[in-house]
Amino acid sequence: ANIVTLPGDGIGPEIVTSAVNILKEIAKIYNHDFSFEEHLIGGAAIDATGNPLPKQTLLACQKADAVLLGAVGGPKWAHLSNVRPEQGLLALRKALNLFANIRPIHTYDALLSLSSLKEEKIKGVDFIFVRELTGGAYFGKKTRTEKTATDETLYTVEEIERVSRKAFELAHTRRKHLTSVDKANVLETSRLWRETISQVAQDYPDVKLEHQLVDSMAMMLLINPAHYDVIVTENLFGDILTDECAALSGSLGLLPSASLGKESIGLYEPIHGSAPDIAGKNIANPIGTILSVSLLLQYSLGLVNEAIQIEKAVNLLTQHGPLTADLGGNAYTTEITKAVINNLH
Amino acid sequence: ANIVTLPGDGIGPEIVTSAVNILKEIAKIYNHDFSFEEHLIGGAAIDATGNPLPKQTLLACQKADAVLLGAVGGPKWAHLSNVRPEQGLLALRKALNLFANIRPIHTYDALLSLSSLKEEKIKGVDFIFVRELTGGAYFGKKTRTEKTATDETLYTVEEIERVSRKAFELAHTRRKHLTSVDKANVLETSRLWRETISQVAQDYPDVKLEHQLVDSMAMMLLINPAHYDVIVTENLFGDILTDECAALSGSLGLLPSASLGKESIGLYEPIHGSAPDIAGKNIANPIGTILSVSLLLQYSLGLVNEAIQIEKAVNLLTQHGPLTADLGGNAYTTEITKAVINNLH
Ligand SMILES: CC(C)[C@H](C(=O)O)[C@@H](O)C(=O)O
Ligand SMILES: CC(C)[C@H](C(=O)O)[C@@H](O)C(=O)O
Repeated sequence: ANIVTLPGDGIGPEIVTSAVNILKEIAKIYNHDFSFEEHLIGGAAIDATGNPLPKQTLLACQKADAVLLGAVGGPKWAHLSNVRPEQGLLALRKALNLFANIRPIHTYDALLSLSSLKEEKIKGVDFIFVRELTGGAYFGKKTRTEKTATDETLYTVEEIERVSRKAFELAHTRRKHLTSVDKANVLETSRLWRETISQVAQDYPDVKLEHQLVDSMAMMLLINPAHYDVIVTENLFGDILTDECAALSGSLGLLPSASLGKESIGLYEPIHGSAPDIAGKNIANPIGTILSVSLLLQYSLGLVNEAIQIEKAVNLLTQHGPLTADLGGNAYTTEITKAVINNLH
Repeated sequence: ANIVTLPGDGIGPEIVTSAVNILKEIAKIYNHDFSFEEHLIGGAAIDATGNPLPKQTLLACQKADAVLLGAVGGPKWAHLSNVRPEQGLLALRKALNLFANIRPIHTYDALLSLSSLKEEKIKGVDFIFVRELTGGAYFGKKTRTEKTATDETLYTVEEIERVSRKAFELAHTRRKHLTSVDKANVLETSRLWRETISQVAQDYPDVKLEHQLVDSMAMMLLINPAHYDVIVTENLFGDILTDECAALSGSLGLLPSASLGKESIGLYEPIHGSAPDIAGKNIANPIGTILSVSLLLQYSLGLVNEAIQIEKAVNLLTQHGPLTADLGGNAYTTEITKAVINNLH
């Protein structure tokens, strides 16, 4: 398999190196042939080429079996007025047509105390968030004059249908409970969302579909997080709610994501940012990226057992350490990599 | 003073009755002359007139010194395709030009255990949320065809400026720390928001202005809620984040809100919904509405001492009870009213 790596900015290079070492170990143990090709994205790409998604990077990604990304952005590029590191990531999602962003949120028994929430609230939390990723206000028409600005949110039936199907299919393999989040009492796009997903539901009679308004959802996620199984919503609501979910789980540095489309190619990245303040110090937590590699093996390469072995190795790590500073330990990034490799054996 | 009451739907009538009794007691103790005029809104207004904001209601509100609202909406009206109870509330906010929704979030020491968050996280939390209330996607152009839907978010410099000034002025009387929330890395309206509020900041040199992206904010509110003093954001982000804040405080039934404009007239309502499942049982928690009356006395009538007396009476109640079921007690709504009145003496 041909894997493109996009280290990006801040701690990106360190955590991608760690995750690639895990992939190499998996290749060794299970006798696979993975090739790696590194390319520029984000601020690093702006510095080198002026473009946050250079043509070469895009071409390489389009030919790859999977793409592994670290993180993009940072204060270094905040002053630029007409180009931003994030544009590289948004353009890549759009170009590869990765319309479904999958974020599994689950808590580790050994790390429950790290959450702001009470242990009894988050023990056993295990749900998957499916965020629409290539539509809505992110890619809508924008206007700007001296005195006004506008953003348009547009959704088509087709866009809603395909991401809904992904969510129903996931729910079908799990506890068969899907929560769709919208603001149908105010937004026209939300009413189309609700109608469309209710139609799609007829093809998945074994899955229970529940609708929730986005404001109530922001509340219910704190009051009863264990209630949820699969949650699906549009791009901007998903951006906000997935970060809330990350915080509630207490393990921001541990959370992976997969961005998927109709084909098997996917983009895999931890959900945390580029953390420029700790970049280059070999102290970043690589687990979010390592677990992204587990999703990569599962969703793009179909190597389900290998994916599970990584999850198990991480689970062991949460129990016996070592841990990085964000989890209360003082281990280096490279020590975590070694420990996960040990646990794989 | 001439106060219009809009009981609305579900538990609305019970909680408004309770709060009006508190106002009457305040009038008696402090020798004020309050007159009350009740009108229809929401589902109750649809049932009676077909219109969620009847002309008579709007006229009465426009002539009032302040408006006290219970709650609107419920499953009873969910099947209606061309009229919704919520439209009455949205139209009223717009017609009275109430562009700033103020929601104080603070926790009660005696009730900390009710929150999903750990006590050490929420002890001492005390901030005010200022949500823009008459702009953005709520009131933007909408289109709908068989296959697509759109919502436009529009903001003008003037809209951003006036709500920013309210937020700076509040911060100026408090800990002088304002957090502005946007999604400036993606939305044009957010970039206008950030530019405009940064301009306004020059008129308030003693207030420290901080910018936060909406996704990070959803996270930071859980990780470090005690950090915040005043928070300001646009309409839809505010809708989502204020509900998250309500849940984190653990005291949803206790939280009031004030919607203010340029004049002294304001609309006051608890932040919870109409709770149709418990309507008519005399078990709803009236405290959110009673504290809304405290905001009414302060912001529309300038009766600051009277406002503080209500806050103190509620504080006593949280310490010694009685409490309604949502707070772990089993008192009736009317018992709470009586207890607050006792505490006022
Ligand atoms: C970097 C930013 C543009 C991006 C987004 O808003 O989608 C990020 O917050 C995310 O959630 O992946
Ligand atoms: C009832 C609804 C339209 C309203 C809103 O979204 O503004 C409510 O959620 C609120 O926050 O006051």
